[in-house]
Amino acid sequence: MNVNFTFSTSTRVRYSETDQMGYCYYGNYAQFFEIGRVETMRSLGVSYKSLEENDIMLPVKEFSVSYHSPAYYDDLLIIKTTITAIKGAKIDFSYEIFNEQNHLICTALTVLVFINKRTMKPIQAPASFLNLLESN
Amino acid sequence: MNVNFTFSTSTRVRYSETDQMGYCYYGNYAQFFEIGRVETMRSLGVSYKSLEENDIMLPVKEFSVSYHSPAYYDDLLIIKTTITAIKGAKIDFSYEIFNEQNHLICTALTVLVFINKRTMKPIQAPASFLNLLESN
Amino acid sequence: MNVNFTFSTSTRVRYSETDQMGYCYYGNYAQFFEIGRVETMRSLGVSYKSLEENDIMLPVKEFSVSYHSPAYYDDLLIIKTTITAIKGAKIDFSYEIFNEQNHLICTALTVLVFINKRTMKPIQAPASFLNLLESN
Amino acid sequence: MNVNFTFSTSTRVRYSETDQMGYCYYGNYAQFFEIGRVETMRSLGVSYKSLEENDIMLPVKEFSVSYHSPAYYDDLLIIKTTITAIKGAKIDFSYEIFNEQNHLICTALTVLVFINKRTMKPIQAPASFLNLLESN
Repeated sequence: MNVNFTFSTSTRVRYSETDQMGYCYYGNYAQFFEIGRVETMRSLGVSYKSLEENDIMLPVKEFSVSYHSPAYYDDLLIIKTTITAIKGAKIDFSYEIFNEQNHLICTALTVLVFINKRTMKPIQAPASFLNLLESN
Repeated sequence: MNVNFTFSTSTRVRYSETDQMGYCYYGNYAQFFEIGRVETMRSLGVSYKSLEENDIMLPVKEFSVSYHSPAYYDDLLIIKTTITAIKGAKIDFSYEIFNEQNHLICTALTVLVFINKRTMKPIQAPASFLNLLESN
Repeated sequence: MNVNFTFSTSTRVRYSETDQMGYCYYGNYAQFFEIGRVETMRSLGVSYKSLEENDIMLPVKEFSVSYHSPAYYDDLLIIKTTITAIKGAKIDFSYEIFNEQNHLICTALTVLVFINKRTMKPIQAPASFLNLLESN
Repeated sequence: MNVNFTFSTSTRVRYSETDQMGYCYYGNYAQFFEIGRVETMRSLGVSYKSLEENDIMLPVKEFSVSYHSPAYYDDLLIIKTTITAIKGAKIDFSYEIFNEQNHLICTALTVLVFINKRTMKPIQAPASFLNLLESN
């Protein structure tokens, strides 16, 4: 099913996340998208931690990102996350990151897969999760 | 110009690179691709460090990755990197990562851009770099 | 001079910060202490980013940490930071990290040194910084 | 018992490990000491991965480090690790990191504790490990 649920959260670029170019290192954005996903799910009433405690995990299968302009040390980044589709075991997220001047830093897409931790097989998205999405 | 220069290097998955799923965290692969790029350039005779000392930097513009199977703690990963094209200021790399059992872990593509550090503008790939690629 | 200025801030343990033991990796706390330092300085009216823009940097010279109990994924950690002394070019911070149940996770000490970025020599702590500390 | 078993391994500073000061970020050394420990144990014939598969884990309890001079991007660092003592459940390591010019970068100490993963209680160091140490 197509979905269109968006949530914004923020994170501040840490000193450890800069590199000698003076930019936020390109590899650190994966962590920011993770924060975006987790806080978006929390805003729906779904704790990713609880999902794992209930033997469901959600590894990333596909990930792509376009870097539009650099983020710098101490920038407060706005991570705008949208759940765009849930089809069978797959869930698609898209992301836009902006700085405080509302300048676009990067855009990204991920595909994640619901996995049963006991069987290690893909499973349908939990009904409770789908219900929360539909009622929002 | 299309290029097809391939080089393999390796890295071992650190404890810090695992997550509580027991997998190598999806965001850490960006670092492995960086190692692949840098060692591929070094094998050609180009030190990325020297490039920056000569006021050229090479930030990542586009990055996409498909995760085929997990890597685990202490796995010795083979990073196979190919320079596939250089067009104007852009350089394309593709990557395949394998474990020691020759199992495919992930594939990826990146587009990087040669930037003049003084003007912060895109520039043509250095002629010396192109010459080294052509003579290999 | 001895100082006793304390400030608390918080950070949530990211998935990327866990390891396969299921703990927050011991090496990631250095980043949390950095967040503690920076937010403590900001609460005083000092932006570490501005310090660097004014050619002063503050690298870590000594760092020690005792791990009392593990932090876990998604824990909201309270970082309690105290500036304990400023002597010449040196500034000492102490830290305590607690989880939401007010359980002590770890304690730490750091010594940092004010460095003039142009000369790369140690310098006295900026008077403006000392004044802000004294008026608090 | 006091021990004095030393082993050297190396790692190259990644771009991701630099910060905007142009130094290797102080928090990344914890990973380098981890590499030192793991490769020192491997040189003795002990795989840390196998230890965990046999329900023994070895978290860090105490960690202190003195930074003598900065490491830079692309530096090939030599990590010299010494097992200095094993007393009951505790194992002490000391570390020195040098760059290729044999310049001392930092020194560190860690105390780790052998833990039974099933009971989560400290346990004596495995006899097999002690035997390997004694025969070396």
